[in-house]
Amino acid sequence: MLTLEQAQTIIAATRAKGREMGLKPLSVIVLDAGGHVLAFEREDGASPGRFGIAHGKAYGAVMLGMAGRAQMARAEAQAYFMAAVNGVYGGQVVPVPGGVLLRENGTVIGAMGVTGDSSDNDAEAALAGAQAAGLDAEA
Amino acid sequence: MLTLEQAQTIIAATRAKGREMGLKPLSVIVLDAGGHVLAFEREDGASPGRFGIAHGKAYGAVMLGMAGRAQMARAEAQAYFMAAVNGVYGGQVVPVPGGVLLRENGTVIGAMGVTGDSSDNDAEAALAGAQAAGLDAEA
Amino acid sequence: MLTLEQAQTIIAATRAKGREMGLKPLSVIVLDAGGHVLAFEREDGASPGRFGIAHGKAYGAVMLGMAGRAQMARAEAQAYFMAAVNGVYGGQVVPVPGGVLLRENGTVIGAMGVTGDSSDNDAEAALAGAQAAGLDAEA
Amino acid sequence: MLTLEQAQTIIAATRAKGREMGLKPLSVIVLDAGGHVLAFEREDGASPGRFGIAHGKAYGAVMLGMAGRAQMARAEAQAYFMAAVNGVYGGQVVPVPGGVLLRENGTVIGAMGVTGDSSDNDAEAALAGAQAAGLDAEA
Repeated sequence: MLTLEQAQTIIAATRAKGREMGLKPLSVIVLDAGGHVLAFEREDGASPGRFGIAHGKAYGAVMLGMAGRAQMARAEAQAYFMAAVNGVYGGQVVPVPGGVLLRENGTVIGAMGVTGDSSDNDAEAALAGAQAAGLDAEA
Repeated sequence: MLTLEQAQTIIAATRAKGREMGLKPLSVIVLDAGGHVLAFEREDGASPGRFGIAHGKAYGAVMLGMAGRAQMARAEAQAYFMAAVNGVYGGQVVPVPGGVLLRENGTVIGAMGVTGDSSDNDAEAALAGAQAAGLDAEA
Repeated sequence: MLTLEQAQTIIAATRAKGREMGLKPLSVIVLDAGGHVLAFEREDGASPGRFGIAHGKAYGAVMLGMAGRAQMARAEAQAYFMAAVNGVYGGQVVPVPGGVLLRENGTVIGAMGVTGDSSDNDAEAALAGAQAAGLDAEA
Repeated sequence: MLTLEQAQTIIAATRAKGREMGLKPLSVIVLDAGGHVLAFEREDGASPGRFGIAHGKAYGAVMLGMAGRAQMARAEAQAYFMAAVNGVYGGQVVPVPGGVLLRENGTVIGAMGVTGDSSDNDAEAALAGAQAAGLDAEA
């Protein structure tokens, strides 16, 4: 089970990686194994709607058990499938990189979502965040 | 304009006050002047749905320019009015104490929402959080 | 049929009346006979969510053909009826004074909504606005 | 922070440009930095649903921090991404030119949306409106 302290570590390390990489202002969310928000931070200068995008990346990952890259591949192969998924989940899934599954001993214990720069850069920063908390991560 | 650093200060001080008062696990949100999420934390042991309650307390405050106690008074005098407000704002308003307006030089710069204990205790912890960030707060 | 020029006159005169009465910052909307937005202005210092409240007051008026005071009386007598109306109209009706029907030669040609001060003061400013445009108004 | 007076200037100048260019009736909206409506006008002869289109162009711009042309490019490259964004933002994003970011000293202070003619003409009129208010604009 993810703790708030782990979530804080993940967010701080993701943001630090973003600064190190010179990325645009990031927004970072951590969800628990049920897809519910544990912690979120939006850096100064990010656009106001970033909570929803960060949430959508992480929510799809944990609800489907499928990280952002796998969701994107599915969306590109079968756009209608991800559209249908969004019907089921109330339009809350954003199927692109930056949504990352968090595992401990092979079990999914939550997900994180990062948004603000390119999807690939968002995902790279996210992986650094998960690593700082000692978690296995799949982008 | 609220910064993320101010939001972090508010959340940490609210949580510290909750521990000092011996409250149940708290969830604390800070919204900007447009009602958009800046930061959120949910303490371990809190129920999973607390993001929505914290958000609803803060969202109604900033969108209506009316803190939680004033919203509660209006809901008790005119239940149908607050029901209608919730229709307008997509059901996102929770009109009870714990929703706190944050002001700087008289101008509303955001709102915070606290949930987890009684509404009055939530509001008391929130005020301590706002004070730690040097902001005028109205519960 | 309401013109944009009439809507501008209504809004300007409502705002002028608000200043004359010393009211809080007002938000004023004018809808056409089909309930669609013609014009809107939100005064500096008003809370960000005022569009939805102004819209809800005017929308209920024109869709039901019933001004704000009549809607409020109905809500107080039969809260469940106005709740049901809001189910039908997607939660967009705010049944309190400040929603005003606009008539020309006895025919409803639109509605206006005012919010920002007490509902009664909102309605009084609205009537001054409608009068400036030479329209019969029912608050 | 955008004032109502600036919003009025933007709308008047956009409409004047539309008349000068011989465009169809325009509808023009100005949103604040949080995506909330400051002012709107719909010219006589425009179809009744234009508020929603104008709003959708401006809303996407401010919430994502991405103007209409950039949104359109993303929609053409990754249609499923903009579909997902619309799920997150409640279907309120219209990703085509005419949605314009408004900046002051490099900071986004709001957005405007114009609809009624071709998207490119809408955007050209919008830029004239922003310029009249002395703002940097990105279409």
